[in-house]
Amino acid sequence: MALIVQKYGGTSVGDVDRIKNVARRAIAAKKAGHQVVVVVSAMSGETNRLLKLVNGISDRPNEREQDVVIATGEQVTIGLVSIAIAAQGARARSFMGHQCRIVTDSTFSKARIKHIDAEGIFASLKKGEIAVIAGFQGVDEEGNVTTLGRGGSDTTAVAIAAAIKADACEIYTDVDGVYTTDPNVCPRARKLDRVSYEEMMELASLGAKVLQIRSVEIAMKYRVPLWVKSSFSDDPGTLVCEEDKAMEDILVSGVALDRNEARVTVRDVPDQPGMAAKIFGALDAKAISVDLIVQNSPVNGKTNLTFTIGKADLVKTQDVMKKVARTLKAGPVEFDDQVAKVSIVGVGMRTHSGVAARMFKTLSTEGVNILAISTSEIRVSCLIAAKYAELAVRALHSEFGLDTRA
Amino acid sequence: MALIVQKYGGTSVGDVDRIKNVARRAIAAKKAGHQVVVVVSAMSGETNRLLKLVNGISDRPNEREQDVVIATGEQVTIGLVSIAIAAQGARARSFMGHQCRIVTDSTFSKARIKHIDAEGIFASLKKGEIAVIAGFQGVDEEGNVTTLGRGGSDTTAVAIAAAIKADACEIYTDVDGVYTTDPNVCPRARKLDRVSYEEMMELASLGAKVLQIRSVEIAMKYRVPLWVKSSFSDDPGTLVCEEDKAMEDILVSGVALDRNEARVTVRDVPDQPGMAAKIFGALDAKAISVDLIVQNSPVNGKTNLTFTIGKADLVKTQDVMKKVARTLKAGPVEFDDQVAKVSIVGVGMRTHSGVAARMFKTLSTEGVNILAISTSEIRVSCLIAAKYAELAVRALHSEFGLDTRA
Repeated sequence: MALIVQKYGGTSVGDVDRIKNVARRAIAAKKAGHQVVVVVSAMSGETNRLLKLVNGISDRPNEREQDVVIATGEQVTIGLVSIAIAAQGARARSFMGHQCRIVTDSTFSKARIKHIDAEGIFASLKKGEIAVIAGFQGVDEEGNVTTLGRGGSDTTAVAIAAAIKADACEIYTDVDGVYTTDPNVCPRARKLDRVSYEEMMELASLGAKVLQIRSVEIAMKYRVPLWVKSSFSDDPGTLVCEEDKAMEDILVSGVALDRNEARVTVRDVPDQPGMAAKIFGALDAKAISVDLIVQNSPVNGKTNLTFTIGKADLVKTQDVMKKVARTLKAGPVEFDDQVAKVSIVGVGMRTHSGVAARMFKTLSTEGVNILAISTSEIRVSCLIAAKYAELAVRALHSEFGLDTRA
Repeated sequence: MALIVQKYGGTSVGDVDRIKNVARRAIAAKKAGHQVVVVVSAMSGETNRLLKLVNGISDRPNEREQDVVIATGEQVTIGLVSIAIAAQGARARSFMGHQCRIVTDSTFSKARIKHIDAEGIFASLKKGEIAVIAGFQGVDEEGNVTTLGRGGSDTTAVAIAAAIKADACEIYTDVDGVYTTDPNVCPRARKLDRVSYEEMMELASLGAKVLQIRSVEIAMKYRVPLWVKSSFSDDPGTLVCEEDKAMEDILVSGVALDRNEARVTVRDVPDQPGMAAKIFGALDAKAISVDLIVQNSPVNGKTNLTFTIGKADLVKTQDVMKKVARTLKAGPVEFDDQVAKVSIVGVGMRTHSGVAARMFKTLSTEGVNILAISTSEIRVSCLIAAKYAELAVRALHSEFGLDTRA
C-alpha cells in the first residue's frame, strides 16, 4: 500500500464529465490498495472569469480581497470532485487551504507556503476517505485567505506530498509527460521516461509549461518522486526524480525554445567600475527582469553590453535605457525583438566536456549566427535570430540523439 | 453615531456596476457617521449556476460538499464589494462564515445559527473599516462549511444585527418596501410605512417574498428594527418593528394571495378516534406538508375532511391517499389544484371583532364561494376557486381601506 498525491489541472476538471473521470481515476487508485489525496485546480477558464469581474471593479484591486474572490475557483472544484467520488460509491472529504491546513506568509496573490498541519488529512485517510484538497490557496497566521500565484496548484500538490511523506506525487495534465522538446516545433520530439529534478527545473525556467518551477524545487528539496501524466490516457508518463548513474550517460535530455525575450545591446560603454550596476539598477527599479547578460572584453576603454528582457517589458526598457545611456555617456542602444533563445539541458554535461562546442558547431553548420551565449552547469543557451528558431531546435535535437527511434 | 447592518440581495449585486453602487451606499452611511456592516448574497443567477454544476454530477449530491460549492457564490461577492469600497477610497474587510464567525449546527443545506463570535467584526469596525460579510453561510463546530437554505442571507443579516446589538438592520432589495398586497394583482396596492413583526411573519409565511420568515422571527426575538428598502432608490422603505397602539387601530395591514396549494377532500371518513392521525401520519411519512385543515361535524357517523398541500406534492399525495382511504374504509377522495388561498392580516384583529365576518360578506357579495377557512389570532385565510383570486384580493383590499389614497 502506497500513499499517493494526485494533482489534476484545470483542463482535467474542465467540465462535469471530466470531473467524473477524475473521480474514477482516484477511486481506481484507492481500489488498487493505495491511500489517495487529490489536489485540484479551478475548472479551466474559471480563474480568468473571476479576474475579469475583479478588474471590472478596479484596475488596482485590493490584493487581500482579490485572493478571497479567486480562491473560490478551487473551492468549487473540490466540492464537485468530492460529490462525484461519493456518487460513484467511495468516500471523500474536501479541504480548503484553511481546513488542511496550508499555512502561508501574508504576501497576497503570491504567498509562499510556510508549513502544513496535515493532521486533518491523515484523519480523513484513516477513515478510508479520499482527501480532496484545493490547490493554489492557503491561509496566513491571521486566518486570511491567500493564493500562491499562477500554477500554484502544482506547488500545493508537491508541498502536501512532502508534508505527508507521500510515496509519489502524480501531476495530471493534458499532455502525457515531459518531452525532449516541443512536439509542435519538432515532430520527432520524444517523451522522456525519466528526467532529473535539476534538468526539470532548467526546462521549466526555459518555458516548458508542464510543471511550475517552484513545485520542482520543493520536490527536489524533499525528494518527492514526481510523475507527469495525462488524465486522458493510461500512459505511465514521465518520472521526475533524483539523478542517477544512467542519466549521466545521456549528454542532453532536452532542447528548449523561448521566444519571449528581446535583446538589448548598449554600445561603447566606458570600461569603468559601476557601469553594469547602474544599468541593471535602473532596470530593477522599474521591476524589469533581465535574463541573459554578455559583456565583451573592452577595446580602447569601451565595451559592448548585451542582455535580454521579456518582450512585454520592451517599451518600458526603451524608456529606461535612453536615459541611462545618456547618463553613462555610452553609445547608441539597439533593441531587437526578433530573437529566440535555444537551450540544451542535461546532467551529462557535468561529466562530459565538449557539449557546448558541439552545440555551436551544429548551429554554425546550419548557418545560424549566435548573438549571445549563457551557460549553467547543466545547460547551454544561445540567443539567435527568431527566424532560425525551429531549424536550430530540430538540428540540435537530432545532433544529440533525441529523435524518435524508428 | 449608529451601528447599522445593511444587507444587499442578489439583484442588488447582480453586476459590476451594481456592486459599485452598493459600495457607494455603504460608504455614504459611513460618511454620515455610522459604523457599517454589509451582508451580501451571491450575484443573481450564481447560486443556480453552481447548483446546475452539482446536479450535473449527481442528482443526490453529498450535502456537505454541495455546501462547499454553493458557499462560493457569497464569497465572490464579499471580495468584489470590498474591492469596490477600497477602490472608492474607504476601507473594507471581507469575512466568510468561518472568519466571522457564524457558528451553526451541522445540518448541511439548511443549517441553523447557534451563535456568532462577533469579536472580529468589532475589531474591524474599530479600525474604521466597513465589515463585509458573506450571507447564507456558516461553519459548524468541526469547521465544516454550512449554508442556511434559500434566502438565508436575510437571516445572516438579522442574526448579526442581533449579535452586535445594531441600531438597525436594513434589507436592500429590488422593491422599495412591504406592500399591502401584490401590486401585480392589485394596482392600488400601497407601500406600508410600518408593519409589526407578527404581521410580517404572517405575510412571509403566506408567500410575500420580500423577507425570509426565519429572519423576521429572529428580528422579533431580539427586537432588531428591520428596514426593507430598495437599493435602486432613496425611498425610506418599510419599517418592520414592534407593535404599538397606532397599529392596533388598523384592522387589516395586508392582503396575501397564495396560488401554490391544492385541495384534497376525503369523503365519508368514519367518525372514530385516530382517523385524522392515520391520514396525516401517512402524509408526514412521505414528507408532505399539510397547511389548512377543515373537518365538518359528523353526520350519520361519517365526516368529510378537507386539507391543502403544496401543488408540487400533488402526485405523491394522490398515491398516499388512495391507500389510506382504502385502509380507513372512507369514501372517495377528491383533488383540486384550481384553488387559491386569500388571506387578510392585521394586529387590529386582536382587539376588534367582526373582521372575519366582514371578509366572508365581501367575498359573498362578489359571488365567491368559500371552500375552506382557517384563522390565527391576526389572520383569516379563505380557500377559494383560483379563477376568483384577483377579484377577491381587490375586493378585500378595497373593503379594508387599503387602496391608495387619491
